[in-house]
Amino acid sequence: MLGTPSFGIVRTLDCGYDEAIPRIRASLASQGFGVLTEIDMKATIKKKLGHDMNPYLILGACHPPSAWEAVSAEPAIGLLLPCNVVVTTDDAGKAVIGAIEPEAMFSVVQTPGMQPIVDDVKQRLQAAIDAA
Amino acid sequence: MLGTPSFGIVRTLDCGYDEAIPRIRASLASQGFGVLTEIDMKATIKKKLGHDMNPYLILGACHPPSAWEAVSAEPAIGLLLPCNVVVTTDDAGKAVIGAIEPEAMFSVVQTPGMQPIVDDVKQRLQAAIDAA
Repeated sequence: MLGTPSFGIVRTLDCGYDEAIPRIRASLASQGFGVLTEIDMKATIKKKLGHDMNPYLILGACHPPSAWEAVSAEPAIGLLLPCNVVVTTDDAGKAVIGAIEPEAMFSVVQTPGMQPIVDDVKQRLQAAIDAA
Repeated sequence: MLGTPSFGIVRTLDCGYDEAIPRIRASLASQGFGVLTEIDMKATIKKKLGHDMNPYLILGACHPPSAWEAVSAEPAIGLLLPCNVVVTTDDAGKAVIGAIEPEAMFSVVQTPGMQPIVDDVKQRLQAAIDAA
């Protein structure tokens, strides 16, 4: 479950967790995102703390031309990169995918010139979620 | 250069980039953070776009007990995890390190119960930056 966070773009898929992962990877790639990082949060929490949770994968997605524009405008932007995409499940076992809503995450950045970059990345992430 | 972003905790070290990396890793570990992800942004930008930039490393730092508390309170919090720490250089070649300011990044999350977690993580990141 991801709920309906104001800081995310969320969609429930008609498949399970394992099938959802290649689907979101493919739709991210078709929007120009590379996946630079991957955190299996369920496994990490189990290993470090012994707690159980639903499957929960955090992918770090990067659209290199946008990242380059962003770091050229705001050198500290790496503190907020890459854009996360989460894959988890709902109570029925269906896959739930979510992407960070860039408008929300980058709202803390006051640097001029960021808005067109944010708009473009938002459109790409929305398209990737819609097409997964 | 990272400047003085409102969304970051930044410090210039009296050493170069290569020496700064084990220093920040050690001080993160001493505050209970594991480094789960690592992005060499300079190498990624060079490879994908051919552009040159200063050395720029993005570490994804996770304090598991805080991550567990956060995801238990707000299932979508993985869209904002882990906390980034950046290592780069200034024009004189000195290492500049920065951590995300959790108060800023999590300001988009309205879920009750987040504030004590944010306060604790902020204190730990500040201590890690101070001690690096």
